[in-house]
This record gives sequence, structure tokens and C-alpha cells, in this order.
Amino acid sequence: MKIVSVGTVAFDAIETPFGKTDKIVGGACTYISLSASYFNSSANLISVVGEDFPEKTIELFKSRGINTEGLEIKKGEKTFFWSGKYHQDMNTRDTLDTQLNVLENFDPIVPENYQDCDILMLGNLTPSVQDNVIGQIKKRPKLIVLDTMNFWMEIAMDDLKKVIKKIDVLTINDEEARLLSGENSLKKAAKLILKMGPKYLIIKKGEHGALLFDNENTFFAPALPLEEVFDPTGAGDTFAGGFVGYLSKCEAINWNNMKKAVIVGSAMASFTVEKFGIERLIELDEKEINSRINEFKQLVSFN
Amino acid sequence: MKIVSVGTVAFDAIETPFGKTDKIVGGACTYISLSASYFNSSANLISVVGEDFPEKTIELFKSRGINTEGLEIKKGEKTFFWSGKYHQDMNTRDTLDTQLNVLENFDPIVPENYQDCDILMLGNLTPSVQDNVIGQIKKRPKLIVLDTMNFWMEIAMDDLKKVIKKIDVLTINDEEARLLSGENSLKKAAKLILKMGPKYLIIKKGEHGALLFDNENTFFAPALPLEEVFDPTGAGDTFAGGFVGYLSKCEAINWNNMKKAVIVGSAMASFTVEKFGIERLIELDEKEINSRINEFKQLVSFN
Repeated sequence: MKIVSVGTVAFDAIETPFGKTDKIVGGACTYISLSASYFNSSANLISVVGEDFPEKTIELFKSRGINTEGLEIKKGEKTFFWSGKYHQDMNTRDTLDTQLNVLENFDPIVPENYQDCDILMLGNLTPSVQDNVIGQIKKRPKLIVLDTMNFWMEIAMDDLKKVIKKIDVLTINDEEARLLSGENSLKKAAKLILKMGPKYLIIKKGEHGALLFDNENTFFAPALPLEEVFDPTGAGDTFAGGFVGYLSKCEAINWNNMKKAVIVGSAMASFTVEKFGIERLIELDEKEINSRINEFKQLVSFN
Repeated sequence: MKIVSVGTVAFDAIETPFGKTDKIVGGACTYISLSASYFNSSANLISVVGEDFPEKTIELFKSRGINTEGLEIKKGEKTFFWSGKYHQDMNTRDTLDTQLNVLENFDPIVPENYQDCDILMLGNLTPSVQDNVIGQIKKRPKLIVLDTMNFWMEIAMDDLKKVIKKIDVLTINDEEARLLSGENSLKKAAKLILKMGPKYLIIKKGEHGALLFDNENTFFAPALPLEEVFDPTGAGDTFAGGFVGYLSKCEAINWNNMKKAVIVGSAMASFTVEKFGIERLIELDEKEINSRINEFKQLVSFN
């Protein structure tokens, strides 16, 4: 199945208790596309960067089979930049700087070549922009997955509710599930959110794993207890990339495959946090990925 | 296998966002014994109460096959009393009142009848009292399990470290694992704690499940996402009771049985939190328990 991913391709500067980076390549769509590329050789990207964006990263995308036809490069403009500092517990962070740059007027165009997309992965962006992309695709994809964050719930809840009516899978974290539903119990929150449109809901709980819900079932994917979480940036997007990447190889999109896809996404995310930025994500191979997925299986199996 | 459990039998007064109780029966050993009694018909209790303790609760223990020979009733004295109020998130609580009463000079005597104990379950108590009980048992039990809390790490760390050298399984929560080891990463914390003596470590993470470690392996038991956590009091002790109860029925104490025991403990705890105090724990039957254990299995199974 053909995947189209929409989201930011950006620069990040990150500080964690373990160290500090200069400007490095980041962005939701970067993590999503790279993660998905381990499962699908026709991942297609839609994003925008400035002319300061390194050609060698675009070459990296291409070398991993990622189609960059949908990557707009704006002459004379600068790439979106985000800078943040993680607290000691690595679960919370402060934003130090945000420079929207090219993102300010991002108006994604879906290339003609992407029209036959089977899985549309909408990375975290302004909800109206996500909605606009759905509107441009003539034949509804088999699966639309949307990631979002608390920021949009605070300033654009109506737009967000409008777009999540049209999707199949929503991925948010536990705090966001509580914010979106007004319910403290995640089980109750899930029930309410599933009434808003999506058929499936994934609640990401960071170091505590992830929950997958549909109207009848609940599945829990653990997080691998790691010696060190070096840099959590991009973990959620890497999860999403592994999730859609795995599903794109399945014969059908159903509860069983969705469960495995959540495990695969979790396994991919567990790599990303081991180093800064995309460093760890770009050096993986199939053997290493399968062995990590197997670790997840072992972690929860009992007789 | 014969289980001996040591710990408090007490009165609690509990306030949660869902309601408030008068003095009700609580205490670590109460939850441990009742929970274990669903798996083992010869659970043996060691504790102390005052003469204000209701005869009908002692009858309840007996009706569930719990041997109360080790329950000292102190004439003219009052039972240990604790009162607490849970915060909105149900993960934190304030202690409103603690009246040690009979617990002040609790000097447990192991009855002669209990000497052939196979599994010794030491509920949360002063570490030196836990140590004293181990010292009274002539033939070392097959398995010694100890539960403790942050309070003892703060005021009696040396005594605690002395007693945990002698045990097989330590059960603590994530905050306590960090406090005991000085490590933030639970995986690193586990490595350090296993060097202090115990062969197995269980880290309880409340609504985020529980981790079981030995020197080579890690196992993760999820918590069941519940619509409502009504009252978390006793969840950890109910877990411990289910854990030792299940193990006491096994032919051997090994990693595989230990994993299942953690699931059984989690399943038992998931009942306790559904109502106030021991209310839910005393009305269970085998069918209901097996169906709950099966829910845990479904929650994490994938192909």
C-alpha cells in the first residue's frame, strides 16, 4: 500500500540532561518518513523547507526510497526551527524558541502522483491544514491517521473536531486524551473520543507504553524499559511512521494487524530515544528491528 | 505450599473523589490474606489488633480458610488506625491521621504451627520487625517476599538494607525504586537493587502496570484500564496476596511461574480498587477471577 505523509521537516536544537545539540534535522514528517521507510519502499512525503535545508538530508530521504516530490523548497526563506530543553525526568520540556519561517504560510499541495495513496498519515500540524490535505485527495484513502497535540486543542478545538470526524485513527498522548474528552479515566476518555469520528484511538503514554482502542477492544503495548532515554524528541512521530509502515505491508487493515502495528511503532520509537535526533533512526537494519520487536513480545508473554 | 503473612490488620478511614468511609477494616495483612485465600486454603496470618477489632472480621478470615492463630488481640488496647484523603488524580494522597495504638510495640511471635512455612510474605512494617520474623523461622522458607515503602527508606535505610539482603522478592513502587537505588532509570535501578540481595524485584507502577526483574530478564504486566478507580487503598497488598497465593499452588518457583503470579496479583488488585476497602475483595469467585486474568492476557496478546 502507498503511504503519503504530511508534516514538518525542520531544524531542532535540543538540550537534555545528557547533552546539547546545535541545529539538527528534525520535524514530524522526517521521523515519520524515515521510520516508515524500513517497511515500505514507496513512502511519499509532503512538507516545506527553506533554502537553508541541507541537500544531503534530501539525498538521505531519497536513498531510503522516500519520494520527495511533495517537498517544497522555498527560495529566500528559512526552515522551521524549534528549540527545547528537557527536564531531568525527560517527560516534560520547555520550548526555548520557535521560528515558524516557511511554516507560517504552509499550504501543502498533494502532487498528482500521490493521488492513489492508500494510507494518509497526517503529522502534527494546524488542524485546518490537515483538513485541507484530506480535501485534496479525490479517492478516499483506505486509512487516514492523524496526530495532533494539546496546543491545537487549546487554540483550534473546533477545527480539530472538524478534521477528526473524517479520520480513521487518532494518535495523542494521555494528557491530550484527557483534554480532548474532559474525562480523567482513559477508558472513559477513549469511549468519548471514538464517538467524535475515529474508528481507532491510540493513546501514547511515553515510558508507560501505548493503548489502542476501538469500540469493543483494548490493546496495550508496553514501552521497553531502557537504561537511558537520551532524547525523546521524535519518539511519537517515529511511532506513527512504524505504525503506518507496518500496516502498509498488511493484506488488510483490521484489529489484529493494528495491534502488531502498535508494537512495531513502539519498537521503532524505542530506537529513536537512544540518541539525539534522527541519529539512531537512520542506522537501523531489519535484523535489529526484528530483534527489538521480539523483545517486546518477550516482555509481555506468559503462559 | 504453606503461606505465612505478616503485617497490619487495621482500621482505615478513606476519602476519595468518589466518597468517604467511616472506620472500615483495612491493613496490609488483611488484603494479603484475603487475596491469597482465593488460591490457597492454608494462609496463615500474623498480626496484632486491639479489643475494639470486630469479631465478625476474624470470623470472615476463618471462613476463608485463613488461620488466625498468629493474630494477637491486646486487651484494653486499640487497633492501629490510619486515615487518608486521595487527590483528584488518585495517584497521590495525604495522611490525615495515624494512631499507632497496638502497633507501637508490635513484637510478632511466629506460632509453632507456622514453622513449616514455604512462603513468607512480609507486608509493609518496620524493617527490624520484618527481620525479627525471618529470624524466628528455623528452616528457611522456599520464598521470602518483602513489601516496604519510602517512609522506611527515609528513616531506617540501614535496617531496611539489612533485611532485604535476606529475602528473595522485593516489591516496591517506581518512586521507591528510584529512592532506594538513587537511579532515575528503572532498568538501572533494578540492576542495583538486585545487587542488594533479592533475586527478584517487582516495581509496581499503579495504573501503569508492574515490572518484574531478575538478573537476566524483564517482564511487564499491564494494569487493566478501568473506567473508574474508586479507592486505591490496599491495591499493592492485594497484589502481593495474589502473587504469593498463585505461587503457592505452583510446582516450582521459577521465572515462568513468577510472571504468571505478577499477572494474577495485578488481576486481584484490579478488583480491590473498584470499591472501598475490602468490599470488592471479599465477594469474588473463581470464575470472575479467571475471567479477569483472561482479560489481562487479551490486553497484551498479538501475533
